[in-house]
Amino acid sequence: MKRLLLPLLFISLAFMPQKKTKVIFFGDSITQAAVNPGGYIMRIDSICKKEGMGDRFEFIGAGISGNKIYDLYLRMDEDVLAKTPDVVIIYIGVNDVWHKASSGTGTDADKFEKFYNAILRKLKDRNIKVIMCTPAAIGEKTDFSNQQDGDMNAYSNIIRGIAQKNNLPLADLRQAFLDYNVKNNPENKDRGILTTDRVHLNAKGNQLVADEMWKVIKAK
Amino acid sequence: MKRLLLPLLFISLAFMPQKKTKVIFFGDSITQAAVNPGGYIMRIDSICKKEGMGDRFEFIGAGISGNKIYDLYLRMDEDVLAKTPDVVIIYIGVNDVWHKASSGTGTDADKFEKFYNAILRKLKDRNIKVIMCTPAAIGEKTDFSNQQDGDMNAYSNIIRGIAQKNNLPLADLRQAFLDYNVKNNPENKDRGILTTDRVHLNAKGNQLVADEMWKVIKAK
Amino acid sequence: MKRLLLPLLFISLAFMPQKKTKVIFFGDSITQAAVNPGGYIMRIDSICKKEGMGDRFEFIGAGISGNKIYDLYLRMDEDVLAKTPDVVIIYIGVNDVWHKASSGTGTDADKFEKFYNAILRKLKDRNIKVIMCTPAAIGEKTDFSNQQDGDMNAYSNIIRGIAQKNNLPLADLRQAFLDYNVKNNPENKDRGILTTDRVHLNAKGNQLVADEMWKVIKAK
Amino acid sequence: MKRLLLPLLFISLAFMPQKKTKVIFFGDSITQAAVNPGGYIMRIDSICKKEGMGDRFEFIGAGISGNKIYDLYLRMDEDVLAKTPDVVIIYIGVNDVWHKASSGTGTDADKFEKFYNAILRKLKDRNIKVIMCTPAAIGEKTDFSNQQDGDMNAYSNIIRGIAQKNNLPLADLRQAFLDYNVKNNPENKDRGILTTDRVHLNAKGNQLVADEMWKVIKAK
Repeated sequence: MKRLLLPLLFISLAFMPQKKTKVIFFGDSITQAAVNPGGYIMRIDSICKKEGMGDRFEFIGAGISGNKIYDLYLRMDEDVLAKTPDVVIIYIGVNDVWHKASSGTGTDADKFEKFYNAILRKLKDRNIKVIMCTPAAIGEKTDFSNQQDGDMNAYSNIIRGIAQKNNLPLADLRQAFLDYNVKNNPENKDRGILTTDRVHLNAKGNQLVADEMWKVIKAK
Repeated sequence: MKRLLLPLLFISLAFMPQKKTKVIFFGDSITQAAVNPGGYIMRIDSICKKEGMGDRFEFIGAGISGNKIYDLYLRMDEDVLAKTPDVVIIYIGVNDVWHKASSGTGTDADKFEKFYNAILRKLKDRNIKVIMCTPAAIGEKTDFSNQQDGDMNAYSNIIRGIAQKNNLPLADLRQAFLDYNVKNNPENKDRGILTTDRVHLNAKGNQLVADEMWKVIKAK
Repeated sequence: MKRLLLPLLFISLAFMPQKKTKVIFFGDSITQAAVNPGGYIMRIDSICKKEGMGDRFEFIGAGISGNKIYDLYLRMDEDVLAKTPDVVIIYIGVNDVWHKASSGTGTDADKFEKFYNAILRKLKDRNIKVIMCTPAAIGEKTDFSNQQDGDMNAYSNIIRGIAQKNNLPLADLRQAFLDYNVKNNPENKDRGILTTDRVHLNAKGNQLVADEMWKVIKAK
Repeated sequence: MKRLLLPLLFISLAFMPQKKTKVIFFGDSITQAAVNPGGYIMRIDSICKKEGMGDRFEFIGAGISGNKIYDLYLRMDEDVLAKTPDVVIIYIGVNDVWHKASSGTGTDADKFEKFYNAILRKLKDRNIKVIMCTPAAIGEKTDFSNQQDGDMNAYSNIIRGIAQKNNLPLADLRQAFLDYNVKNNPENKDRGILTTDRVHLNAKGNQLVADEMWKVIKAK
């Protein structure tokens, strides 16, 4: 019986649409807005299709406003694992830093690292590929005089360290934003170049994030 | 065969040492210190033995300094579930409130509730009984002029609400501490009655917590 | 010459319009809004006139949004002393407490007291009468579960202590608001009884503040 | 008479000890410690004497632990003006930034600038010369990943702007510390190069501050 079935199986596979790589974007309000027209996920989808790979990828947003690293951990079973993704892009950190000053409820650096690693372990256990991102900006000044720059650099360093240690691909958005601002923000403004309000992305910011992420997604 | 075995079974049960009820105390630095001589867990063990129930209970401390509700959630698999307890006493909340002012890394009220419920669900799934506690004090003044009194009352209200909604037993340590201080702290001091430093327990504080918890443990 | 002039002086005094008592309200955004229609200063003016004392008092608002105790100290020469008031009503404290959590820039309790006393010394040096007020509310819940209740009670205690020590009249707005809410806020809501947003006054709140202050002003 | 007195006056001046330039160092705990052996004020005194100018300068410490800009403003009459200095060196800013995170009682940037300018006005009114300093460090990492680096840079920028606008000499300690660490802190440590604890000066830190300040004092 086996010998009979095999040729049929090959034929059916050849004509079957290829299973798409399911990519989930896991993050905060920046990612929540990214599924709207002009958002970075929509732009990645456009780039992907333009490059003729529209049948190979499926993109899903899983961003919730106000989320910190431990919120991702809490909801990952339901919002990520249950959807059986092939790739998860983790884009988090702004609120972990920001909420220290704005409401006294940020995340300690050591806890940030601990929860990040716990999320990675759960994804690794299920053989889900991971792309990590550094948080881009809370303020666009280029002389490191945005209030949270110290912590933003520190938490980005933590993320870079985890990526290196686990040999995981990284979209270093913080570096990309800084590089872009050094060239395009001569007046040292705190917003209006890539963000509308120091944090959330304008059209150019969404495009930059899309470009940076797509490079890494494609390379996987 | 059944008829033959039953009498033997009864006999063996009568002589077999009863399986002890395993109680895990799950919390922060207050619970971490509670396994030391004079600590509240040691005192519960003493009371238990004095009341002739030493062969019925086993008490295990699982407190880690600096822990907040989400730290408990992160480590509960390893530190609680892996030990297959019959009862878990959750005593948390001080750092969730305190760290807002001391390092900007407290826990938002809505997140506190969310993580608390997530912990309860995991314990319920395994049929582990739960005893909840309100956080006792950050300061012992009785006119609600300790800096964190507003939040301590608010988070205690959240805990009381969860207990009521889930029909779970509650050791209302905050109420017990307040009642005790109203009687025994006429000078409205912020420490030295039940705590050494506004938060951590002195001998009287450890005894009061032991008494309050034991009442609830025994009643289960 | 003296003998000659005295009778004339008495006569002229009898017919001269009495010099009005100049009252300056020195505070934050609550006082800044109080000169608008319906604001508490406008209401005090109305009560004053209704009670036939319109020719005896002049009311001046000197509130600036976001002010803390040290802001009052910084601007008191220009905004208060330069206007040579007879009475200054100091109504401050909400931001000293609130900004701890909202931006990390509140005022330490000991500094609050130090600056308060420095303001009083400057007013005393010029024989300006002072009426002190406790900050009314950040949240109207009556079970002391508003986040800042601990500090609000603590800073109100500081103000009460200063008033007592210096034998100065006090409008205890915090106590008045609490008393009112105990009677009129059965659902333990955090706003909507005397405030619109937990802090700023609605019509009833403005009236209550006006009534409480007028009692003290009149008694001077 | 004038003709007669003048030659005498010249003679007496030639033999009279020159009036020393009185320099007051106005700051926080860093300056409070600077009058101890090895402290930066003691080192400035040593350099001054070594360079043969010991009879021309008198150095007075006026640092108090925990001080922020508004504390300087509050105590400047008593601690500075009453001592009739010729020069005041203002070295402040660490606590204005630091206390945001450590106790929620830092200073808003706009208020920092306002109080700084108010201090300068009072000194200018009395023709007292001013030397300004940027706050050196809260952490010595050189990649701007110390938690407060963003604010430290921002508040230093404010100070630099005030100095430039008022044409006042500046000891840019923050820049000097960064330059030194770039050369001497290859491991990117947060303390131990110029500070003992990220903030307070070790021997090398005291020497660097002394050198930087002396350059500016001498040039006056």
